[in-house]
Amino acid sequence: MNRDSILLGLIGEGLDLSRTPAMHEAEGLAHGAATVYRRIDTRGKRASGRELKTLLDAALALGFNGLNITHPFKQAIVPLLDEVSEQAQQLGAVNTVVISPEGRTTGHNTDVTGFARGLEEGLPQAKMDTVVQVGAGGVGNAVAYALVTHGVRELLVADLDSTRAEALAAEINKAIGREAVRGVDARGIETSIAQADGVVNATPMGMLAHPGTAFDTACLTPAHWVADVVYMPIETELLATARALGCQTLDGTRMAIYQAVDAFGLFTGLEADASRMRETFLSL
Amino acid sequence: MNRDSILLGLIGEGLDLSRTPAMHEAEGLAHGAATVYRRIDTRGKRASGRELKTLLDAALALGFNGLNITHPFKQAIVPLLDEVSEQAQQLGAVNTVVISPEGRTTGHNTDVTGFARGLEEGLPQAKMDTVVQVGAGGVGNAVAYALVTHGVRELLVADLDSTRAEALAAEINKAIGREAVRGVDARGIETSIAQADGVVNATPMGMLAHPGTAFDTACLTPAHWVADVVYMPIETELLATARALGCQTLDGTRMAIYQAVDAFGLFTGLEADASRMRETFLSL
Repeated sequence: MNRDSILLGLIGEGLDLSRTPAMHEAEGLAHGAATVYRRIDTRGKRASGRELKTLLDAALALGFNGLNITHPFKQAIVPLLDEVSEQAQQLGAVNTVVISPEGRTTGHNTDVTGFARGLEEGLPQAKMDTVVQVGAGGVGNAVAYALVTHGVRELLVADLDSTRAEALAAEINKAIGREAVRGVDARGIETSIAQADGVVNATPMGMLAHPGTAFDTACLTPAHWVADVVYMPIETELLATARALGCQTLDGTRMAIYQAVDAFGLFTGLEADASRMRETFLSL
Repeated sequence: MNRDSILLGLIGEGLDLSRTPAMHEAEGLAHGAATVYRRIDTRGKRASGRELKTLLDAALALGFNGLNITHPFKQAIVPLLDEVSEQAQQLGAVNTVVISPEGRTTGHNTDVTGFARGLEEGLPQAKMDTVVQVGAGGVGNAVAYALVTHGVRELLVADLDSTRAEALAAEINKAIGREAVRGVDARGIETSIAQADGVVNATPMGMLAHPGTAFDTACLTPAHWVADVVYMPIETELLATARALGCQTLDGTRMAIYQAVDAFGLFTGLEADASRMRETFLSL
């Protein structure tokens, strides 16, 4: 190994299936640095019962170089940090914390940059005037923020909990300073999808544990582009249907991989090899 | 890498010059495991102001596989652990904490096993009836315990602070259940050394920052064996003088290396390659 070792971790709940640890450990090694990336699961045996603040302080004291932050702590971490990037500050959510050698913490959001990069690479020609996003939970805020800051003029966010959709819309509009997002009830959203340029699934529908689709795919035409944040399986029922129709599609792997690619760069100052990280991701 | 990554650390004060992190990181890699070993220095920027209990809990929560413990925490760590080896319990000092996947902590003392192994390998034929140890601080208790549990019948421990020497003697005698150790004033100890089989320097005298010897070496004869715990430099003034006289000698590198060899085995369940760890140690 020709570089100093790297120590990283992921704070959140229910992390067993995360592929992020393996991506970072392999990428660090490929750059000549012994790299350890630990799951710090507040529902696991080791970290249960600890406050987020306690875990952040632990990582400072024990020499971590950085942390990823996931559900349910992406908002709660923000006020605990020394500094937060403008983007993450606007969104009010951080998924990546860089810790300097002196212990100074800086928050970033690579869910946003990762989804945006996937969008640019995976759907380079797609029309982005009006888009429907189904699902306002989970990474919904990062996806919505990325969409309206990367070319989408008008975004409809639909959720079975319309209050949640409206809150997300208000949050993003405030963050970007224009009325780009509207929150609506997911019931009957097919009419809006039929008229939109593209649609993004940001619900868990399509995962192995949640088979099916979040809306009736009969509203899709070959003119639509269709994106999914689900990546287990990579080919969800939604994407399979869309592809069969001839739609342009974007699967969930790009966001999952690019959030790690961008985080690796922030953690280490090294340029991650995205195709190598994809290879690791797909090998799992 | 063909094994799970390994995460280790050293809790103590003033750790900048420790060679233990490099030995473990290199040995772990040689076994096919990305290995990170962090200095957790309560006088450093990252960990200052934290209680030992807080740091131990942090290591549990953040997924460490083990910790080494050094000055000034080797005694204080004992009551914080779930289990302590009989040897470490007797001595009342732990330098190695193994953390199970579930977060169960077990304390060991590889200063004792490391010094004993060095003694057996480095001075296999040496007569061990009566020995003088100069210095009752630092690793003095581990050295004394190792000596009287590995063939020394009668040990005189001398310190400029005779109270400290007497306390050490009482502690070890209680631990082993016989009156093997006597604590005395270091002034005039040359008379006792002259009559002993061997002498161990367990003071910092001979280090670059503390040149000289802890006693007048004029009392040495070729019949003595001479051991030193100092390893920076490896050839202390004491050892140079003893070698010139024709004495059998044991330098400080063996204890420094074998404590790490033994700890690596406990941390990982893998057999460390002592000559490879020595190579790393000497490369620093």
